[in-house]
Amino acid sequence: MFLSLFPMASWLKSYNRIQFGQDATAALIVTMLLIPQSLAYALVAGVPPEVGLYSSILPLIVYAIFGTSSSLSVGPVAVASLMTASSLANIAEQGSASYLTGAITLALLSGLLLIAMGFMKLGKITNFLSHPVISGFISASGIIIAVSQLKHIFGIKAHGDNLATQIISMSENILDLHMPTLIMGLSVLAFLLLAKRYAKAFFLLLTFPEKYAAPLAKTAPIIGVFASILVVYFFDLGSHGVAITGAIPAGLPHFSLSIPSLSLIQELMLPALMISIIGYVESISVGKTLGAKRGEKVKPNQELIGLGAANLASGVSGGFPVTGGFSRSVVNFDAGAVTQMAGVMTAFGILIASLFLTPVLFFLPKATLAATIIVAVSGLIDFSILKKTWCFSRNDFYAAFSTIAITLLLGVEIGVASGVILSIMLHLSQSSEPHIAEVGLIEGTEHFRNIQRHDVKTLLHLLSLRLDESMFFANSAFLEETILNMIQNRAEIEHIIIQCNSISEIDFSALEMLESLNRQLLDKGIKLSLSEVKGPVMDQLKASDFMTHLSGKVYLSHYQAFEALS
Amino acid sequence: MFLSLFPMASWLKSYNRIQFGQDATAALIVTMLLIPQSLAYALVAGVPPEVGLYSSILPLIVYAIFGTSSSLSVGPVAVASLMTASSLANIAEQGSASYLTGAITLALLSGLLLIAMGFMKLGKITNFLSHPVISGFISASGIIIAVSQLKHIFGIKAHGDNLATQIISMSENILDLHMPTLIMGLSVLAFLLLAKRYAKAFFLLLTFPEKYAAPLAKTAPIIGVFASILVVYFFDLGSHGVAITGAIPAGLPHFSLSIPSLSLIQELMLPALMISIIGYVESISVGKTLGAKRGEKVKPNQELIGLGAANLASGVSGGFPVTGGFSRSVVNFDAGAVTQMAGVMTAFGILIASLFLTPVLFFLPKATLAATIIVAVSGLIDFSILKKTWCFSRNDFYAAFSTIAITLLLGVEIGVASGVILSIMLHLSQSSEPHIAEVGLIEGTEHFRNIQRHDVKTLLHLLSLRLDESMFFANSAFLEETILNMIQNRAEIEHIIIQCNSISEIDFSALEMLESLNRQLLDKGIKLSLSEVKGPVMDQLKASDFMTHLSGKVYLSHYQAFEALS
Repeated sequence: MFLSLFPMASWLKSYNRIQFGQDATAALIVTMLLIPQSLAYALVAGVPPEVGLYSSILPLIVYAIFGTSSSLSVGPVAVASLMTASSLANIAEQGSASYLTGAITLALLSGLLLIAMGFMKLGKITNFLSHPVISGFISASGIIIAVSQLKHIFGIKAHGDNLATQIISMSENILDLHMPTLIMGLSVLAFLLLAKRYAKAFFLLLTFPEKYAAPLAKTAPIIGVFASILVVYFFDLGSHGVAITGAIPAGLPHFSLSIPSLSLIQELMLPALMISIIGYVESISVGKTLGAKRGEKVKPNQELIGLGAANLASGVSGGFPVTGGFSRSVVNFDAGAVTQMAGVMTAFGILIASLFLTPVLFFLPKATLAATIIVAVSGLIDFSILKKTWCFSRNDFYAAFSTIAITLLLGVEIGVASGVILSIMLHLSQSSEPHIAEVGLIEGTEHFRNIQRHDVKTLLHLLSLRLDESMFFANSAFLEETILNMIQNRAEIEHIIIQCNSISEIDFSALEMLESLNRQLLDKGIKLSLSEVKGPVMDQLKASDFMTHLSGKVYLSHYQAFEALS
Repeated sequence: MFLSLFPMASWLKSYNRIQFGQDATAALIVTMLLIPQSLAYALVAGVPPEVGLYSSILPLIVYAIFGTSSSLSVGPVAVASLMTASSLANIAEQGSASYLTGAITLALLSGLLLIAMGFMKLGKITNFLSHPVISGFISASGIIIAVSQLKHIFGIKAHGDNLATQIISMSENILDLHMPTLIMGLSVLAFLLLAKRYAKAFFLLLTFPEKYAAPLAKTAPIIGVFASILVVYFFDLGSHGVAITGAIPAGLPHFSLSIPSLSLIQELMLPALMISIIGYVESISVGKTLGAKRGEKVKPNQELIGLGAANLASGVSGGFPVTGGFSRSVVNFDAGAVTQMAGVMTAFGILIASLFLTPVLFFLPKATLAATIIVAVSGLIDFSILKKTWCFSRNDFYAAFSTIAITLLLGVEIGVASGVILSIMLHLSQSSEPHIAEVGLIEGTEHFRNIQRHDVKTLLHLLSLRLDESMFFANSAFLEETILNMIQNRAEIEHIIIQCNSISEIDFSALEMLESLNRQLLDKGIKLSLSEVKGPVMDQLKASDFMTHLSGKVYLSHYQAFEALS
């Protein structure tokens, strides 16, 4: 029981040299991908670049201890970084010390919330999120992130805490565009787009084995980073107005645990919860997808603890919220990572980078990072969900569309919250009008079928109904009304039998409805009977007063009821 | 179509003298009940007493035009008044002009929201509220209201915007208690409690007809009001420290429509929405209950418009949020109101009261109003829901209990919101693990039954499953996992058939799950087939790519599938 908290224990005891070699190769490739990503997502989150690196060291080690996926690569990711920036927009100015405190507090709170959810076994929380909502939300977030980076490509200033104000602010300043920055930005963009398309073929041409060509192809950003550093350095572009990263303090993250103020905690609690849930959803779905390819079980509740511990680790080492990233984990998997040790080794890679690479990163142009981000998030933007759901299920379409529209117009928190609420309400509203059929006997058998579709025997004084869903608060009013409507103008009815074989739950609201229905029918001289009630439902009914009030009887089979009341 | 907006048109054209007589009698009795209630709920809402009277004039007339219930009596009610006070607690000081502006704004916003909901046909919104949550919320609100009035009975000061701080503040000041006030308060309380118990018998003894004895018994509060006014007047208790109502401006409400500021609207939008929904739920359930006794149809969407118009009318005539009240409507019904004209006549009664009665109400002690409120809300407090749900359905118990606890501890808005969210989440979480049974053939028939309960024929290479619920986002992950678990250690399985006769909906999340399941099964060499797919579901599947990917086939009946794959 206690050991299950440390999945590391199980893979570490059989760890061998072959695994080490495989993990080390994967770690090398992921490190090359993670350096530019860490810097880039720090830019998205609005924190200093070294914070991106710090967020990619300790969290990886801690996830390796507590996480259950062998290939998940934890660190800063696009959507969580955007949500971090958006949560802090009204709290502090980007670049200020209190902004950084806010980011760290978000990581700490996310960590605590995720761990608490893990101990409360809330791994199933993803059940409340429909795919179209998540998909729409991620696409819309991708657009917001991409647009927010355009200013770095153009070398202009732009403000605004939502998409519309940012676009307006950019178009106001577009005439200030800085040509060297734009050329730099577009060149890197072009390089990355070409690399996305042809790099794998290129590595295959260089006779790299198939297995490594694909992961290596994903490391194009680091080439872009170093190439543009060299260009900036040799042509002294920094003093010609190209915005560069500037001084990054070299060294290790400082460990500190300053308790944030209560008012800050109150303000950030809800954003932290949303970052946690969205981060967890992204992470668990990557973990499960990769796990399925390898027959590996990813345990939802333990993943909550693993991710929570990683975020806590990020917070105490000066980092911002982290989660398992999609592109990075796929690279890790494809490059052959076989255990969480790959993550530990990646952490060492980033550690070395933050010790020795920072003088070089001084010259890194922001336009390069912006281009890296734009290419990375372009993969997130996919509106095909609208087309697919339009044909398949209109409710899902509405949920996806409104999530996209609200996220773009009103921001990420309200976008995802409204999407989740809408999808749940649409579902409840759909199940609030369940199918209820009048059934009759197929003569010569004991079977009952819908009278509208089959030639069946019915009796004038007996209304025989079949209900195809559980009864609960969302549909009980509808059921009562429907049944009462059915008996209007049919004064000859003396008995109603409800066939309950599809009813697996009756909640208290439905019980009260049944009581009221039973009473109203009795007032009209009609007796209510039930048939084929499932065991657990019968136990429930017996625990209430309903059985003493029921005007009719409960029959084992619908046929028995039909015979008895004939 | 247009006329259906004015239900008045249909009852007014056949209105006759007999109906007039019945409505007038009911209106007289309801007026006597409504005068003290209006003053009392103004006290609960924290607005001046005349505002309570204003809220009981125009709204009643407007409801008579647009409403569909012949017996619903609209006006200030306990819970909506409490919610008004609670929404305004952080916005302005009670008694200030901006507090009153806030209350009027709440009425206007509620009105607009309800009308908008009516036109959007959202009458079904009550489906999202489970009975235990509503019941728990109303009980908790009753306690909060009763406690908030104790200070008037004791004649002490007490502050605090939640139950705990109020109780603490009261116990700090309990030594200041004012004996004459306490005696006055307890006497009225005793009188009202006795009246509640014996007044009907008393009126019967006076040979009033049975029909009027019960409604008349409910008018005890007005006797309490006038008796205590006389006592205060003759013993000059006002100058002996008994808190009295004081000067109430006589006359008609002033019509005014000052557009509230945008920031006030933003702040009050959510509270107004909650007041609207809770008010509507109370109103529609009273309307439906009374309607059912008379075979009268209350139309939910038109009721939204009727209540909305009544709130708008309250707002423009200087009133606060109103809704159909339970006790008042029952009195109206019992006293024989047959059409909405009773409401119009009640409005005239209150109009006359506010023109001529205000000099007398000067002497009305606050302790009397407090006693009236306490007795009125004591009927709301009913914790039997906890006992009933404990035995019947644990989820409903948790929902009711947490609604009560959170309402008492953290306030009404957060209490009802968390209750609604919890009940929906518990329901989704329950339906997220639907029953999925492995079935086998009953030999000699074409029927399939659960292999764990029946002696049935199964085939080693064929896994035959029956799913008892629709597939949607909340259960798709569970279903995928369950089916993949079922085939573990059963390498001989070549086919899986899912019997889909209970599936009435497949949403997009479930479709993606089926695609993924189909792919994973194919990787293991297992073909997936479906049987007995309902027509609408089949149409949906055909609109997607799924049918081209499905590794097996779709069979009309499970038996055909079983035979074909044998």
